[in-house]
Amino acid sequence: MSSLKVPASVPDPYEDAEQLKKAFKGWGTNEELIIQILAHRNARQRKLIRDSYAAAYGEDLLKDLDSELTSDFQRVVLLWTLSPAERDAYLVNEATKRLTASNWGIMEIACTRSSDDLFKARQAYHAPYKKSLEEDVAYHTVGDFRKLLVPLITAFRYEGDEVNMTLARKGSKYLHEKISDKAYHDEEIIRIISTRSKAQLSATFNHYHDHHGHEIIKDLEADDDDEYLKLLRAAIECLKPREHFEKVLRLAIKKLGTDEWDLTRVVATRAEVDMERIKEEYHRRNSVTLDRAIAGDTSGDYEKMLLALIGHGDA
Amino acid sequence: MSSLKVPASVPDPYEDAEQLKKAFKGWGTNEELIIQILAHRNARQRKLIRDSYAAAYGEDLLKDLDSELTSDFQRVVLLWTLSPAERDAYLVNEATKRLTASNWGIMEIACTRSSDDLFKARQAYHAPYKKSLEEDVAYHTVGDFRKLLVPLITAFRYEGDEVNMTLARKGSKYLHEKISDKAYHDEEIIRIISTRSKAQLSATFNHYHDHHGHEIIKDLEADDDDEYLKLLRAAIECLKPREHFEKVLRLAIKKLGTDEWDLTRVVATRAEVDMERIKEEYHRRNSVTLDRAIAGDTSGDYEKMLLALIGHGDA
Repeated sequence: MSSLKVPASVPDPYEDAEQLKKAFKGWGTNEELIIQILAHRNARQRKLIRDSYAAAYGEDLLKDLDSELTSDFQRVVLLWTLSPAERDAYLVNEATKRLTASNWGIMEIACTRSSDDLFKARQAYHAPYKKSLEEDVAYHTVGDFRKLLVPLITAFRYEGDEVNMTLARKGSKYLHEKISDKAYHDEEIIRIISTRSKAQLSATFNHYHDHHGHEIIKDLEADDDDEYLKLLRAAIECLKPREHFEKVLRLAIKKLGTDEWDLTRVVATRAEVDMERIKEEYHRRNSVTLDRAIAGDTSGDYEKMLLALIGHGDA
Repeated sequence: MSSLKVPASVPDPYEDAEQLKKAFKGWGTNEELIIQILAHRNARQRKLIRDSYAAAYGEDLLKDLDSELTSDFQRVVLLWTLSPAERDAYLVNEATKRLTASNWGIMEIACTRSSDDLFKARQAYHAPYKKSLEEDVAYHTVGDFRKLLVPLITAFRYEGDEVNMTLARKGSKYLHEKISDKAYHDEEIIRIISTRSKAQLSATFNHYHDHHGHEIIKDLEADDDDEYLKLLRAAIECLKPREHFEKVLRLAIKKLGTDEWDLTRVVATRAEVDMERIKEEYHRRNSVTLDRAIAGDTSGDYEKMLLALIGHGDA
């Protein structure tokens, strides 16, 4: 469930584009107006605003936002204004660059998007980067990380509900053997996790839990300094995206000095997907609402933009 | 260039469906009529005929073809009648089954289809098989074959013409080092071949040829009993699909006892794509036309269907 609040009557996109153009002019930028418009338009509407802006002024709205805004506010507005597929392509590209490298970021997109959405990100990658997404992921990762991340990011998982219980039992038994032997890097583990449908994986992990008395996640907590193992665990945890994103938000806000990078990414990528559920989960787990936690940890236009996206206040 | 001959005036699909229904009735099947209709309709038209057949008779045309026809003729008609994406999905599925297992078949589809067509095959896989295509490929292949085939079949290559010459030089140098060391199974070789765009790969292999005096293919001919090496070579040769398919046809026809499996697959999958070019290449390479070679090696309705698909005679 989306947390986005769109006004009952949305202005014509040319009108929105004109207002944005005005917001950039004169005595400093009018950030309030930018938030008022962009934080309250859905993906289709934002696309129309960008098209109208280009048609009316011969300029790219994203470039103007980039040059008018700064810091965390700039990042959240830019990420948000992109279409979901462009945004995911952008985030993966960023995650493959040396200074912003993040196996975690690649894994998160691979494991929490629907099959179609993940494929759309791969399609959206070609035009701006003149390469394929998996080409950059494979080039910029090494060893076991590559072996795990490339199949995850290139998967087009079956999304039906059918579960093969024989296969679930076999998978669970196999995983347990390998984990007992600490053979975490076994290629069959990667095969199972990167190719099976999410329904099949859930059945497999439930069987694991029922038969071995622990969740598979717990059995993978052997060594908390092993970055590969952390990533593998997270790939499994992402089967429950709501809980995954709650955790990312919790850790981002709890940090000494908020992790704006994580906070921005989760809010910009989930606002239009399942932010209402993530908020419920956050409240349940932390006894404080996400609105209050964000308000306590951020400030200024950045805070206002985040709060608007998570549905605080009116459109 | 397609070899398909479609009549100037194509009957209404309901009329075609009715004729096909008639062809199945009475004193044995009328194979001539089946060829006359199906071998002269393009993918869109065949789809309409299937839809019309289902609407008019409440039956599946493919099932009726399956029960009315036999042997090689049955196989070529069935494969041909499928849409290209369904057909590729079917062929990959078949190639992952124990009795019809074929790493070669998986590689051919992975390496000769456009990025979009390969993805469409993955989409078309979900509904009939209730799994993902890569799930079956990964499950049914082992070791180095899996390491090569899974990235190939899940690739969504960039298809622009841009070439990065620095990268081509680096790639060529790297490939030469590994090949000199007989490290054919090196994961970087697989990464380069499975992720780079075809334009980039051509530039890389041209650089290899220019700098080392041999084509990379020649340097990979070390050991002709090594099935993995053969597959790797073929994956490279598939960059030039016309030459690859000419070779498959040549070997299929030259065999003591034609290889109908290969012959059928190439004709059914390429008739609507580039069969005219493959025919030119075949003629150039074998000093006999493909029509004559096929007529000399096959017979009956199977021969007639193949010849119709490669554009022999009139629509």
